[in-house]
Amino acid sequence: MSGPTGNGVRPKEVEIVEVGPRDGLQNDPQLVPTDVKIELIRRLAATGLRRIEATSFVHPKRVPQMADAEEVVRRLGDIPHLRLSALVLNERGFDRALATGAFAEITFAAVASETFSQRNQGATVQENLETWRAISRRAEAAGLFRSVTIAAAFGCPFEGEVPVARVADLARAVADIGTEELSLADTIGVGGPADVEIRFAAIRDAAPGMKLRAHFHNTRNTGYANADAALRMGVSALDASLGGMGGCPFAPEATGNIGTEDLVYMLDRSGVASGVAFAGLRDTTAWLEERMGRRLPAQTAHCSIFPPVPA
Amino acid sequence: MSGPTGNGVRPKEVEIVEVGPRDGLQNDPQLVPTDVKIELIRRLAATGLRRIEATSFVHPKRVPQMADAEEVVRRLGDIPHLRLSALVLNERGFDRALATGAFAEITFAAVASETFSQRNQGATVQENLETWRAISRRAEAAGLFRSVTIAAAFGCPFEGEVPVARVADLARAVADIGTEELSLADTIGVGGPADVEIRFAAIRDAAPGMKLRAHFHNTRNTGYANADAALRMGVSALDASLGGMGGCPFAPEATGNIGTEDLVYMLDRSGVASGVAFAGLRDTTAWLEERMGRRLPAQTAHCSIFPPVPA
Repeated sequence: MSGPTGNGVRPKEVEIVEVGPRDGLQNDPQLVPTDVKIELIRRLAATGLRRIEATSFVHPKRVPQMADAEEVVRRLGDIPHLRLSALVLNERGFDRALATGAFAEITFAAVASETFSQRNQGATVQENLETWRAISRRAEAAGLFRSVTIAAAFGCPFEGEVPVARVADLARAVADIGTEELSLADTIGVGGPADVEIRFAAIRDAAPGMKLRAHFHNTRNTGYANADAALRMGVSALDASLGGMGGCPFAPEATGNIGTEDLVYMLDRSGVASGVAFAGLRDTTAWLEERMGRRLPAQTAHCSIFPPVPA
Repeated sequence: MSGPTGNGVRPKEVEIVEVGPRDGLQNDPQLVPTDVKIELIRRLAATGLRRIEATSFVHPKRVPQMADAEEVVRRLGDIPHLRLSALVLNERGFDRALATGAFAEITFAAVASETFSQRNQGATVQENLETWRAISRRAEAAGLFRSVTIAAAFGCPFEGEVPVARVADLARAVADIGTEELSLADTIGVGGPADVEIRFAAIRDAAPGMKLRAHFHNTRNTGYANADAALRMGVSALDASLGGMGGCPFAPEATGNIGTEDLVYMLDRSGVASGVAFAGLRDTTAWLEERMGRRLPAQTAHCSIFPPVPA
């Protein structure tokens, strides 16, 4: 079983959703100062990134790293051409995000595994879908772009393998409720490129015409191969995190996201335009590593030799 | 320019050439004891690996890590079903390899960049091809399988971009001289999957019917995406190094090869049979890390959660 392979053609361009300020920093044992977060988002926007997941509105006791969510976006102010997004898991979080007036889009997490749903969202898969029904309606009324990520779509740290049919059923349910973009997340970094092909083929059938997005962690070194496979399967947006920071506080061994600079390097070499300046990302990683006092896992920021990228 | 994409179908099986004992250890600042090398090769063979590049026959002053080449293979003795290979760069090295009587195959390095050829082989590209002509004839007479790797095929640390046409011309020249397998090596880890597609398409045209092999370094996190692309372009063998050890002492910033266990994990998830036991590789990495006193860069050996691989 080598799986379907899509049409095998990479698109001419792809959006990158920078999730470092949210997925990166929320899992970091360090509490990064609010000033650094704001400066990070400004620097990221200056590299050409147009979609940044700035924060999540979750309970500050559960995720203390995101307790300053309101303050970050209030002090950040308006950045031209930048679409800020927030992760929300419940109506209380949505209320908080909406009240800031700062967001162009919201991301909600549906979960493909019952155990993970109950641990991460504190709700069953079905209860969680009902929460999305309520939020989706209000987000639509408020004119916010609605994106739903299916977490644990490639495997669950508690249940193991997650059947493709379950992911497809969930995609169908989410599409029926209403969303504008559907993302598959390999929360614990267990999938390989054939898994990506099989799952995106299934959700293309389950939710025809839906804008597709993908979220990979590089836990087992498959993240960039998966991103390339997702491109060839027709996703129009890829999540990445500067320096490859990231994880999930409630998923054991969920290490960093694929790194934005390494992804952009691969895209540049593949002739896929992202609108993001590789050099700017490298500089920003160097800046952030100094602030965090350690080397981050992405690699191109630490390379000095670059043969010119083909025109 | 998104490049050709081959037939887009992964093969049902692929050979893995374990290069850790050669490419891994030759670049290590530590001088690994001969006993450990021998034990490493035995353990690697026990995981199901059938092709192992055990050592290189180069000048011990230039590569002191390989000074014990003869002793390693003499004391290793015969291992059933294992094809040992040696890297040779000149006739003196070939003489030494041949004298051991231990090898089923030899690998020679052609080089796609003039500067790199002169620094790595101490010969021009053309002189080096003449060396291969002499060795190839003798290797054929001795019944050794002849494999040629085109080094710096994706970029040169000194010259930068390496034109595809030059790689194709070199492949044609090597095929004309005589070889049974042709490998493209991204010695400094600068290529992306579209580069892999473009280059393998070009050498398939330049050397029709040739058995193809690929050698990737994960320096910029593209190594596994490249391996997946090479599979889809029809290679029948992939190089990898246990734990992701590796590099090249004469190529600045040439960091580790793709890791054998991470590659096998990705292949297992993709339904591509390699005949190698993932669990055995993980155990061997743990053993080797203890011997070397440090963590190696491949990642799956450090993960404990594994959803079952799909049947």
